[in-house]
Amino acid sequence: MPSLMRQVSIIFRCASMFRGDKLKERGSDLGTCHHSYILLLCRNPGISQDAIAKKICINKSNVTRHMSQLEKLGYVERRQSDEDKRMMLVYPTQKAYDALPDVKDIVHEWKEYITEGISKEELEMATEILHRMAKRAAEYAARDLDSEDSE
Amino acid sequence: MPSLMRQVSIIFRCASMFRGDKLKERGSDLGTCHHSYILLLCRNPGISQDAIAKKICINKSNVTRHMSQLEKLGYVERRQSDEDKRMMLVYPTQKAYDALPDVKDIVHEWKEYITEGISKEELEMATEILHRMAKRAAEYAARDLDSEDSE
Repeated sequence: MPSLMRQVSIIFRCASMFRGDKLKERGSDLGTCHHSYILLLCRNPGISQDAIAKKICINKSNVTRHMSQLEKLGYVERRQSDEDKRMMLVYPTQKAYDALPDVKDIVHEWKEYITEGISKEELEMATEILHRMAKRAAEYAARDLDSEDSE
Repeated sequence: MPSLMRQVSIIFRCASMFRGDKLKERGSDLGTCHHSYILLLCRNPGISQDAIAKKICINKSNVTRHMSQLEKLGYVERRQSDEDKRMMLVYPTQKAYDALPDVKDIVHEWKEYITEGISKEELEMATEILHRMAKRAAEYAARDLDSEDSE
């Protein structure tokens, strides 16, 4: 059987293809990697770009690139923090809130699709084991992002 | 607890950051998403670009872009198939074979890191459940890639 990381990669990449198709079907101009930002920003309006990087586990230059894409598409507004001029805060626009139900639907539809035939107990077990791995993974990313600051 | 897909995304993204760091440390010019191609091509020299897309579950335009990057970096050579002129076959170069031990080391190192504290039984259980999900995911991707052909 292929390794756990190979399964993780397949599921991640196929989820991305699925989202791309479904967003296109719904006439959305969001890219396949934008859904995490829409979900996060609508829950945390005014979050800093650095905090986004830590929450989503993605390096800061990618966050900056994606925020610039989302700003151009009209989903976010960025403002310099009054307290710390180096900090960039991100706010979702009405367009982001309007897109939220579609994003949630698509995420849910994919989950339903891949977990067909998996029992509730199996799903809980796999989620719990993966949760411990994801915690270690996120610890690595946090150290990495902190070391970016000191470079 | 966050959903299984959220754990999958975190593990995937952090693995990508980890590979980026480790490749850089080893002086490699490979990008973070190139490792799957190096592993696949060294096992299957002469595989077609379309077959790569299905194996790795990535859309064909991304495969073409990545193959072009790897060709520029000297890791692959592409040749038109004699049997079917529309088919592009990809061969790893000596540079790809030389990079293979580093790529395998880094993949192994990440696996050791995230599975610390996970028992063998837990890992097998999680891998088996994810394997069934990855199978469904890959079925979706295969249909999607086939429909690209008929567009």
